[in-house]
Amino acid sequence: MWKPAPHRVPAPGLPTSVRIYEVGPRDGLQAETAVIPTETKAQFIERLVAAGSRTVELTSFVSPRWIPQLADAEELMDRLHLPDSVRTVVLVPNRKGLERAVAAGAREVAVFVSATEEFAKRNLNSTVDGAIAAATEVTAAARALGLPVRGYISMCFGDPWEGTVPVERVADIAKTLVDSGVTSLSLGDTIGVGTPGHVLALLDALRERGIPTSQIAMHFHDTYGQALSNVYASLTAGVSEFDSSAGGLGRCPYAKGATGNLATEDLVWMLHGLGIDTGIDLDSLTDTSSWMAEQIGHSSPSRVVTALRAART
Amino acid sequence: MWKPAPHRVPAPGLPTSVRIYEVGPRDGLQAETAVIPTETKAQFIERLVAAGSRTVELTSFVSPRWIPQLADAEELMDRLHLPDSVRTVVLVPNRKGLERAVAAGAREVAVFVSATEEFAKRNLNSTVDGAIAAATEVTAAARALGLPVRGYISMCFGDPWEGTVPVERVADIAKTLVDSGVTSLSLGDTIGVGTPGHVLALLDALRERGIPTSQIAMHFHDTYGQALSNVYASLTAGVSEFDSSAGGLGRCPYAKGATGNLATEDLVWMLHGLGIDTGIDLDSLTDTSSWMAEQIGHSSPSRVVTALRAART
Repeated sequence: MWKPAPHRVPAPGLPTSVRIYEVGPRDGLQAETAVIPTETKAQFIERLVAAGSRTVELTSFVSPRWIPQLADAEELMDRLHLPDSVRTVVLVPNRKGLERAVAAGAREVAVFVSATEEFAKRNLNSTVDGAIAAATEVTAAARALGLPVRGYISMCFGDPWEGTVPVERVADIAKTLVDSGVTSLSLGDTIGVGTPGHVLALLDALRERGIPTSQIAMHFHDTYGQALSNVYASLTAGVSEFDSSAGGLGRCPYAKGATGNLATEDLVWMLHGLGIDTGIDLDSLTDTSSWMAEQIGHSSPSRVVTALRAART
Repeated sequence: MWKPAPHRVPAPGLPTSVRIYEVGPRDGLQAETAVIPTETKAQFIERLVAAGSRTVELTSFVSPRWIPQLADAEELMDRLHLPDSVRTVVLVPNRKGLERAVAAGAREVAVFVSATEEFAKRNLNSTVDGAIAAATEVTAAARALGLPVRGYISMCFGDPWEGTVPVERVADIAKTLVDSGVTSLSLGDTIGVGTPGHVLALLDALRERGIPTSQIAMHFHDTYGQALSNVYASLTAGVSEFDSSAGGLGRCPYAKGATGNLATEDLVWMLHGLGIDTGIDLDSLTDTSSWMAEQIGHSSPSRVVTALRAART
């Protein structure tokens, strides 16, 4: 019986190992309307780690009024027992969130800004500058406590209200965050419109500002099917950390029915095909995503999950 | 109101123009079980051309016993009235098919071989060498009549029965076809397992045999979501012709429910994003694919078609 698996054929000049930053439990579940029990979330995270995920964003210490799905952040953190070797991160929107995260035992936090005014207003109830000020304040406080800080920038390529986002603007915000002390950056194509030339231009602008590639993660959405070619372009520019969600969990909030986050399985297929190590067992991960898809009540949009399941039946 | 469209940001060193070889009417419809009326097929092709398709594979002059869906090849050709500027191609499996195609007014024909024995046996009822002999015979006859000939090679990356396919074997078959007179090649990842390093290795092997990039088209399937990154890798190696089907028409015959052909819309999004001309109007093409999806009774697997339709509602 044939068992589909990627053939390993490396391409010259790419990283030999990539860190996959798993966003399913936070970014993915946040987009789901069905409320998921804390125990199910904990099982999801533990199964991800068992499948080889080395880096997982667990939850968000945002106000429960904003995101009821993640209101159980403390309870979830308390329930989890993960090995120290796993890098775990929690999102914090402000000082209050940081205090809660630290009290809950967070090892690393993530802050969040927008590259566009309209998204800052609608999603963060702020301005671009206001969000940056809030993020740098949290960053300073977290660093003073010895915690690493990841800085997310949303809408780095296009914005539904403002159109194309200039790479210079994104690079300036990235430089401000790095100067304020963030230890890494995640550059998001929140609506999934970017293509490889745009990715390379943005990475050029970051390099011109002296930001090392080792501090950069790319966060692509697959709404227009472009995520993996953007990952490949990023790899050719030396990027070695990518955000994705197991099974493609998390829909696109700007186009009902469309795909959001890049599926971890689709990313793993390409990386393993390129001979790049990720630590992930694709079959275990697919089983985990399929199980989680049942919990939330709709099927995975991942091409790999769909095809592997089809090949089994 | 926001209208999603790719932002044009060219990447260095890529072709400025790409020929999209539209396989929907033949390769796509062939995989559909619902019988489509000839008039619908003709409308589909005429709408594709109106949306800017410059190269279309119309049908196949295969025995109606093998593929009942395409039994109306003569009737369809007779019904169509396309401008001379459109490159039209028909598939021919043998001398009999070539005679029928020529009688029906074909301007270019395509022949078909397999890189693996098991696929040759199951799909062509032949051996690899037997299929090559049949193809070269048809090629010689077609060239003698002044017709260009496209040579398809299936299973160029992986095979469900034989696993990884050696690039040297594919390159040797490609060289044999070119020496026999085919004017262009289409190298198919029939089960969609390939990744960019494998693509670059195959293109290297073709270059070593002196086959010019201008004669090479790549035919990727999106079964594991890898098609577009493989297109991008091919572009960096100078390839400028790609096969795709409108709306992703044509399912994967080896994994029920999985995606087959790369959707033309997803390809166009990336190419236009890279500032590469295709001649295609994305909105018209999406309308055409959506209309065709209604005719065949199931929705398009294309990420772009899905997202653009979602954005409109």
